[in-house]
Amino acid sequence: MVMIVPKTFPIWGPGMIQFAENVKIISRGSLVIDVYGANELVPALGVFDAVKGGAVEMGHSAAYYWDGKLPAAVFFTSIPFGMNANGMNAWLNAGEGQKLWDELYAPQNLKALPCGNTGVQMGGWFRKEINSIDDFKGLKMRMPGLGGKTIKKAGASPELIPGAEIYTNLATGVIDATEWIGPYHDYIMKFQNVTKYYYSGGWHEPGSVLELLMNKKSWESLTPELKTIVKVCAAQTDRDMFAQWIAKDSEYYQKILDEKKVSVREYSVNVIRPMKKYAAEVLEEVKNSAPLAKKIHDSYKTFQRMYEQYQEVSERAYVRAQKA
Amino acid sequence: MVMIVPKTFPIWGPGMIQFAENVKIISRGSLVIDVYGANELVPALGVFDAVKGGAVEMGHSAAYYWDGKLPAAVFFTSIPFGMNANGMNAWLNAGEGQKLWDELYAPQNLKALPCGNTGVQMGGWFRKEINSIDDFKGLKMRMPGLGGKTIKKAGASPELIPGAEIYTNLATGVIDATEWIGPYHDYIMKFQNVTKYYYSGGWHEPGSVLELLMNKKSWESLTPELKTIVKVCAAQTDRDMFAQWIAKDSEYYQKILDEKKVSVREYSVNVIRPMKKYAAEVLEEVKNSAPLAKKIHDSYKTFQRMYEQYQEVSERAYVRAQKA
Repeated sequence: MVMIVPKTFPIWGPGMIQFAENVKIISRGSLVIDVYGANELVPALGVFDAVKGGAVEMGHSAAYYWDGKLPAAVFFTSIPFGMNANGMNAWLNAGEGQKLWDELYAPQNLKALPCGNTGVQMGGWFRKEINSIDDFKGLKMRMPGLGGKTIKKAGASPELIPGAEIYTNLATGVIDATEWIGPYHDYIMKFQNVTKYYYSGGWHEPGSVLELLMNKKSWESLTPELKTIVKVCAAQTDRDMFAQWIAKDSEYYQKILDEKKVSVREYSVNVIRPMKKYAAEVLEEVKNSAPLAKKIHDSYKTFQRMYEQYQEVSERAYVRAQKA
Repeated sequence: MVMIVPKTFPIWGPGMIQFAENVKIISRGSLVIDVYGANELVPALGVFDAVKGGAVEMGHSAAYYWDGKLPAAVFFTSIPFGMNANGMNAWLNAGEGQKLWDELYAPQNLKALPCGNTGVQMGGWFRKEINSIDDFKGLKMRMPGLGGKTIKKAGASPELIPGAEIYTNLATGVIDATEWIGPYHDYIMKFQNVTKYYYSGGWHEPGSVLELLMNKKSWESLTPELKTIVKVCAAQTDRDMFAQWIAKDSEYYQKILDEKKVSVREYSVNVIRPMKKYAAEVLEEVKNSAPLAKKIHDSYKTFQRMYEQYQEVSERAYVRAQKA
């Protein structure tokens, strides 16, 4: 298994090492997975090709990294103003999501399963306050994927910077802002030392699904027993990584508040409303990229509408009751 | 395995049959679980004693059914104004929750694992409109557990009625109101045919965890391999049942809206604020029931505060962005 992040990447790396360990224990050693961090065996962004071509049998990444090859892959990680982790869980595991993912990946000789979720990411770290959409004009911000394309429409320069270089770029003013993941991983990156504002509610990635990526021929060569083992271990990892993300992010958000180095802000409607319009334009381009992309888009959006209509009388109504 | 619900109980029954099937496949038949629905082998509420005494090795239920014996058991299902499913997942699997659950159950010769979650339940079905807390005075409502104790403080009569009898009791006016689970299971019960109002945001059960209950001696007699198998299969069931609950509840909520038989309402602050005060009194009684109950209460509440503080800048901030 080749990973898109280092094996030491908090939560993510140890989560996949535990996954491999569980598979080995349960299969009584008949399926042993050697875990390689990013760049140990193949470059981080080489995971897709390495697994597709069969150089390795397994990878761990996030589907939206492959949107250059398969634009519709973004629907299997997270899209701007899309579903949160619970919605993705329901669409993938009790809706049409997994079937469509299989349909998208099969011609690539790939099979994927959901295996981890970061939850709603944070909006990002900024050296200056963001009060209106105009504040994005000329802003150099590290933001990959559809989020990056969206802020570009608002006049920003989305920068693609490797994780290890973001801090220095931010500290020296080479970039003005960055998003990363959530309070736990962000804190470790020390962004609180070189910015003034931490924005909440990451509209660009509201529930990023991580993927267990497998060479389809290798997957199909597994016995039904080994397939079941991989499936249940991936599901456990999915649930447990999400639990850890929530717990650690909650803990480190408290720490960030306690240290009082940055001011936590929420984007105003003057930012969010135009951003939503730009995000819709970006998504329209993905949808129109291929017939299968449209099919996936439509399934996703239909599910999202129904899911969020129900959220309004369940999770959201409950939050209102808690605050009453 | 003896269940607290029939094997045909939607989502729940099939979920546990699938769990047993997965355990059998993965263990190559060395751990075979025979699933019995409620009352097939032991009475529904006899699950605890049957597993504790070793008459059976395994059960599936929800911890709060045992609050007569162990008041603190409620913290491992759901408490009024408590954490939602994601918070419970984080506390149990990445916080102190599981350790405390083990501590509570060990003297009972029991070991439990989270294995399913219904999500936020609905507020309930009412024959009359609820506009203030006074409307609960004299109200006969089917509501078990701490929720029932809470509405009792508001002057209601909480009724304990077996599932099969609720519909008739409601249709004939023997009771005025009932809660059940969520739109999917509620719809199957046909409550929409005999009530006028469906209240949202179930403050009484905001994320009910289902439990895989095991005789502790039987659990400890398993090999490390079989223990891992049970753990990962329980985790998969946990994630997948939650996904199914969300998907089916979303679908059936749409159906309930389409049929226009009932009016969906949200409790006003005139209901929620006093209810929150009563719920706090009820919880205080649980907390004071035993030193371990206080320890569990304190861990839960500390985690909830930290978790919800973070939710405010993640899930909740994102919902505000979506609605902006």
